[in-house]
Amino acid sequence: MVKIINIAIDAMGGENSPLKNLEGIKLFIDKNKKIDDYFFQIYGNQSEIEKIIKEKQIDIKKIKIFNTSTVISDEETPLAAIKNSKSSSMWNSINAQISNNADISLSAGNTGVLFVISRMILKTINGVSKPALAGLWPNKKGMNVVLDLGANIECDEKNLVDFSEMGSALFKALYPQENPIVALLNIGSEEIKGTETLKKANILLKQISKKGDFIFNGYIEGNKITEGNSNVIVTDGFTGNVALKTAEGTAKFLTDSLKESLTKNFYSKISLIFSYFSLKSFKNKLDPRKFNGAIFLGLNGPVVKSHGGTDSLGFYYSIDLCYKIVKGNLLEQIRNNLNHLNNDKR
Amino acid sequence: MVKIINIAIDAMGGENSPLKNLEGIKLFIDKNKKIDDYFFQIYGNQSEIEKIIKEKQIDIKKIKIFNTSTVISDEETPLAAIKNSKSSSMWNSINAQISNNADISLSAGNTGVLFVISRMILKTINGVSKPALAGLWPNKKGMNVVLDLGANIECDEKNLVDFSEMGSALFKALYPQENPIVALLNIGSEEIKGTETLKKANILLKQISKKGDFIFNGYIEGNKITEGNSNVIVTDGFTGNVALKTAEGTAKFLTDSLKESLTKNFYSKISLIFSYFSLKSFKNKLDPRKFNGAIFLGLNGPVVKSHGGTDSLGFYYSIDLCYKIVKGNLLEQIRNNLNHLNNDKR
Repeated sequence: MVKIINIAIDAMGGENSPLKNLEGIKLFIDKNKKIDDYFFQIYGNQSEIEKIIKEKQIDIKKIKIFNTSTVISDEETPLAAIKNSKSSSMWNSINAQISNNADISLSAGNTGVLFVISRMILKTINGVSKPALAGLWPNKKGMNVVLDLGANIECDEKNLVDFSEMGSALFKALYPQENPIVALLNIGSEEIKGTETLKKANILLKQISKKGDFIFNGYIEGNKITEGNSNVIVTDGFTGNVALKTAEGTAKFLTDSLKESLTKNFYSKISLIFSYFSLKSFKNKLDPRKFNGAIFLGLNGPVVKSHGGTDSLGFYYSIDLCYKIVKGNLLEQIRNNLNHLNNDKR
Repeated sequence: MVKIINIAIDAMGGENSPLKNLEGIKLFIDKNKKIDDYFFQIYGNQSEIEKIIKEKQIDIKKIKIFNTSTVISDEETPLAAIKNSKSSSMWNSINAQISNNADISLSAGNTGVLFVISRMILKTINGVSKPALAGLWPNKKGMNVVLDLGANIECDEKNLVDFSEMGSALFKALYPQENPIVALLNIGSEEIKGTETLKKANILLKQISKKGDFIFNGYIEGNKITEGNSNVIVTDGFTGNVALKTAEGTAKFLTDSLKESLTKNFYSKISLIFSYFSLKSFKNKLDPRKFNGAIFLGLNGPVVKSHGGTDSLGFYYSIDLCYKIVKGNLLEQIRNNLNHLNNDKR
């Protein structure tokens, strides 16, 4: 018997919801005609959702709608949201893992609230010091997992070790053919560089890597993240958030400058005709929508956060990520890694 | 009477020294035939330097060579270097500000040693809590000053306030027609975001900005650095170093991918002929050699660190930066800003 992957989706989170969320679901269904092992639980305003499903002719065999009456806005603070959130699409899409056998939850709504609600409902895995937010980041040879991206602005060496185990588990779930290679983000590659916390984590990770959950590659500098010699990049949430956003800003700055240069005169415009497909493949390869989706790691159930501002294609990629995470047995991988870690300590 | 700007240069630091250093000097002399208010003190192996000067036909009217017998290697630790450094080209090019009336010192050698020697010889300006390393970073509207880039991995709010005053002084020295607009690098723009240190610095900077040395623009996220709405970006040395290197790595990754896409087939190669000049202007505008040179701020004399791996054009730009820093009265600007800051405290 095939196990059905149950994906609970908050249809009301993010810009242009629920339209883009439902279009993303349609894209997933259309692209995956050959597989049959998934099902969507959609949480939100039933009549709005049904209207779009009809308009867009979305196949309803793979869908069940759960009507919810409120939506958590982007301005809401976590504290206020907790009080009033139980009727919301977000709360119910997370709680689906408790009440409706969902395997994973996906939302493009308010990140802070999503993180707090997820922790409250799903609870932290026994033995994990702090849950973390992980993301995908392309490199020359494939893809990096990078964490923490902002859940914990201050971290100690125990947190960084947990992030290494959880990030490696995520990498193995997504890329079962490859070996996770962990590196600690630092300002130099020499042993004497960095904070005391990093030095302690460096010593611990050397020992722990002997258990075989991952290869430990020492320190990595910001300019080497995209080289692909390591693929699980571990850092505290402050540094990780600044690094990710700086990379996004730099990429936008460069592509905007390129666009400007290539459209400023007659000859450069002609060149665009010839280079159309090359530039398209360049753009396509590095399209940020392809890496859309940050994963909350360390809870007793996986939760994916889609970028609020993404479009239906971006939302499709975050659904695809959800499917792959469950298919790759992320939670089991994390529990295995943590067992190795904690058994050794006793 | 015109004041002569005396630039002391360590000719032996960095890859391909002293050749690239002297070629950089030649470029500066050739490009500045119309100005006469500068002079180079060159520290290094006299016979090697004289040989290159002859070969390259460098105009010696603007040059005096000071023979030094040793060179500090890139592997040397600051502690070891202090003991044996007094005969080195680096030590003497810094000490030139004490013994030979130099206005500024420039080296492409070992950064850690340069920082320690500079502090030892020039001493920290009265009232500055920690010296910092500042760099230039292009944005859509012009240029940012970013600091600290790695001199201090941990910083308190007083350090961040000093960095704001010193960074604004550097910005005013380099771009006298523009107003420095300070922003604190953080993981969100809301007041509740970030570490306690950042929150305290945020409150202090709001008060201090009323004195008029700079406009304070609050928090900035990594993806907004290149937008140009702020131009003095303040952060601790750990975060600044990671952000700078991540931006460098991202830029290299994108330009490498673009190159690959544009040369992979016949049509894309034809397009290169048409877009040659557009792509050249794109590359030219963002050439990292143009921003070569990090500035040690907070000492009783300015010191510029050129990238060790740069070429003669990159070294030329760091010489040009030295000239502009002295011309713009950097030290006086810093002392003025610090006076405002400290007078108010009493």
